[in-house]
Amino acid sequence: MTTVTVWNEYRHERETDVVASVYPDGIHTVIADELADHGFETRTATLDEPEHGLSETVLEETDVLTWWGHDAHEEVSDAVVERVHERVLEGMGLIVLHSGHYSKIFRRLLGTSCSLKWREAAETERLWVVEPSHPIAEGLPEYVELSEAEMYGERFDVPPPETLVFLSWFEGGELFRSGCCYTRGRGRIFYFRPGHETYPIYHQETVQQILANAVAWAAPGDGPVSTFGNSDPIEPIDTTDDRTVH
Amino acid sequence: MTTVTVWNEYRHERETDVVASVYPDGIHTVIADELADHGFETRTATLDEPEHGLSETVLEETDVLTWWGHDAHEEVSDAVVERVHERVLEGMGLIVLHSGHYSKIFRRLLGTSCSLKWREAAETERLWVVEPSHPIAEGLPEYVELSEAEMYGERFDVPPPETLVFLSWFEGGELFRSGCCYTRGRGRIFYFRPGHETYPIYHQETVQQILANAVAWAAPGDGPVSTFGNSDPIEPIDTTDDRTVH
Amino acid sequence: MTTVTVWNEYRHERETDVVASVYPDGIHTVIADELADHGFETRTATLDEPEHGLSETVLEETDVLTWWGHDAHEEVSDAVVERVHERVLEGMGLIVLHSGHYSKIFRRLLGTSCSLKWREAAETERLWVVEPSHPIAEGLPEYVELSEAEMYGERFDVPPPETLVFLSWFEGGELFRSGCCYTRGRGRIFYFRPGHETYPIYHQETVQQILANAVAWAAPGDGPVSTFGNSDPIEPIDTTDDRTVH
Amino acid sequence: MTTVTVWNEYRHERETDVVASVYPDGIHTVIADELADHGFETRTATLDEPEHGLSETVLEETDVLTWWGHDAHEEVSDAVVERVHERVLEGMGLIVLHSGHYSKIFRRLLGTSCSLKWREAAETERLWVVEPSHPIAEGLPEYVELSEAEMYGERFDVPPPETLVFLSWFEGGELFRSGCCYTRGRGRIFYFRPGHETYPIYHQETVQQILANAVAWAAPGDGPVSTFGNSDPIEPIDTTDDRTVH
Repeated sequence: MTTVTVWNEYRHERETDVVASVYPDGIHTVIADELADHGFETRTATLDEPEHGLSETVLEETDVLTWWGHDAHEEVSDAVVERVHERVLEGMGLIVLHSGHYSKIFRRLLGTSCSLKWREAAETERLWVVEPSHPIAEGLPEYVELSEAEMYGERFDVPPPETLVFLSWFEGGELFRSGCCYTRGRGRIFYFRPGHETYPIYHQETVQQILANAVAWAAPGDGPVSTFGNSDPIEPIDTTDDRTVH
Repeated sequence: MTTVTVWNEYRHERETDVVASVYPDGIHTVIADELADHGFETRTATLDEPEHGLSETVLEETDVLTWWGHDAHEEVSDAVVERVHERVLEGMGLIVLHSGHYSKIFRRLLGTSCSLKWREAAETERLWVVEPSHPIAEGLPEYVELSEAEMYGERFDVPPPETLVFLSWFEGGELFRSGCCYTRGRGRIFYFRPGHETYPIYHQETVQQILANAVAWAAPGDGPVSTFGNSDPIEPIDTTDDRTVH
Repeated sequence: MTTVTVWNEYRHERETDVVASVYPDGIHTVIADELADHGFETRTATLDEPEHGLSETVLEETDVLTWWGHDAHEEVSDAVVERVHERVLEGMGLIVLHSGHYSKIFRRLLGTSCSLKWREAAETERLWVVEPSHPIAEGLPEYVELSEAEMYGERFDVPPPETLVFLSWFEGGELFRSGCCYTRGRGRIFYFRPGHETYPIYHQETVQQILANAVAWAAPGDGPVSTFGNSDPIEPIDTTDDRTVH
Repeated sequence: MTTVTVWNEYRHERETDVVASVYPDGIHTVIADELADHGFETRTATLDEPEHGLSETVLEETDVLTWWGHDAHEEVSDAVVERVHERVLEGMGLIVLHSGHYSKIFRRLLGTSCSLKWREAAETERLWVVEPSHPIAEGLPEYVELSEAEMYGERFDVPPPETLVFLSWFEGGELFRSGCCYTRGRGRIFYFRPGHETYPIYHQETVQQILANAVAWAAPGDGPVSTFGNSDPIEPIDTTDDRTVH
């Protein structure tokens, strides 16, 4: 069974009434409950727990980590970011949500600024599926409408996605690459745009389906573990050359 | 005219006779001379210069940076890595050579360990062109033979190349993705495998052609400079919603 | 110098007043004149010429072919499609424009239906650059606005573009992958969405810049010509096995 | 349960003793038995059956089709190729094996010549996994050794694979992109190089594992079925413009 750790910054919900009214127990609780309903083993972790709730043990037991952060990206310790990075390279899946685009871990894995345009005006977003055969598109309609969304607009400064699953249309005239797949090491990464703290996006059933699909897609397999470093030849070759400098 | 800065760790050549005999004035001097012969404006920079020779002014004037390092990756200061990283995102091209796969800047841009298998046995490498229409393959034969090379073998822990131009066959039984193109921000990156310090690879004319092609390909253009951050709507929309939380 | 052949179905302009008022001498004439102004050697060819104007000689002399068709795709002879296909695999660039998505040659090169959604309502299209470092984005602003356009909407049934340069936003709620790069054989292919016959899209200067950029990008280089078929071993191996069945 | 149809030209086995000694009941029988052992529902179809065994009913009931052909590609009727093509675009998976690279259906789906270099000398092939997190690499070691193989060498004239899973090293000095994933319409396509008729490749357990992995990966999902053609606007727009020309 796939084990998911749902990470949340969990500040807005405790500090702001409008957010608390949408996610009274935190975004992480809603997502974890949904994923449990879809058959995953779940736990949660938040910024203000020791080690942000992401101890070595927790990460070792995690198949897929989901990440929601916004206001306190810089408070995430470099040591934990390093630990998460290593686990992704080892094979742990990572689902980065909405404002998590600016998280240390996402920028580190992608190597770019991950900047974008944004606007909060509760405007219409229409999330179009452009790769209908991708596992993350299972069970979806041609598009998903979100009646009130924060706008994220291009240019999204990320490397070209290995697979682009969703594109978003916004009422105000912008568009966005909203569902982007990447591979880093043995780990699979999915960035999913929707999900602002003041709009009830994660309460929407189709969005929950997408998150469950993404977790299933990002779960590690048992492909070969690569060996690195100095290697003996497999074929017989002359190894008497003495020019080696290490 | 494209301005190239050729960066070299420049330690082996000063410390080891066998390397000095191949590159008496340093790898950087050979590469810079070749690129000048191909019509580029060149300068060099090395690890032991102040700021590793990569001051803000130098980088601002650099269109394409080539990078050769091996033994002292950790001595490159984080501040300079940060500066180079920012310049790549702004559009500076970067050509990473051979053992530069483990450089801080390459790992930071790619987000992976950049690990690989290796062996120094002066064995045959055959560099096959798999994407003959790519600008970096201009003027090349179907394959280039390097009679004495260090082996680098898969798994090469990098993200899937956006374009894979070269594949290497090695006598000892391994193969390698030897010419890999990436985009990060507005910058183009090319990783080129051949080039060990104890073999005269960069004296070989076809290799020089490849380096010149790579520089031409990686040179920045004048595409749009993206604007990021809060954006007014382009289309008329209702902006009176008051739920905004920053 | 790059030689461009501008192909046009050239029926609507002769049969329909509203089209004739926008392109009195045909879409091909406007595009060819623009490309000549950008420094290319140009000629034109149209459906009702012998061999559709695409004789073996013409194609041999063509570096880049641009293709606009709409109503008479099925009238293009299979022999000419075969000839164009072979020239693309040999290295000729191909720029497919707007309703050319349904042309025989485009579907043949891509292997899919190339279907899409469409609507003619003279609505706003906003063409966003998502890959600003690509040569086809040279000299462009962040987005190009087309005040009156035919809508093309996703799902666009094409293989995932190797590089996605443009995305279009439409007033009516759809979006589209509007600038798509592909490689087939040694040939480069660019699909560019804008350009309906009843709207003066190709009279717009920024669109002309994009077409010129695309032609420059698609022009053939002189990378290696691949050899195929039975090959002698390069390394010494035992070739006495007699199980061969051809 | 995933239903697989294993298609085979089935001529060499009936006409040539050396092939009959390796595959007495045909390559298709061996592959179908293996896939059944891996839990798939299987049937077989061969060239000399009516409609090559690929009636509309058979294809409708097929989730994944595997294709082995060599000597009689041109005897496959265009009508059946068209039918298979349409089913792939609808979502049927397709696994193309070895000399199937020259089949009508593969060339049609890819749009290129699919040419390559080849040699039959029972030489060593070493199949390296370059994308260990891909589902087709499940349960594999870092490389698979095939002691007697036909050589296929680059340039392999195919579009750049969307995912490159395997690379082959050959004793005689060549290499090859041996495991290539593509998407066409809603269908997933995997090309797998190993498998010559005179060597017992498909009797090898690791190869069987790869085929089973590929079938599982290529099986259709239930993503959205795209609608195409004329579309009403989703957002309210002015639709009174009368310039429409169909």
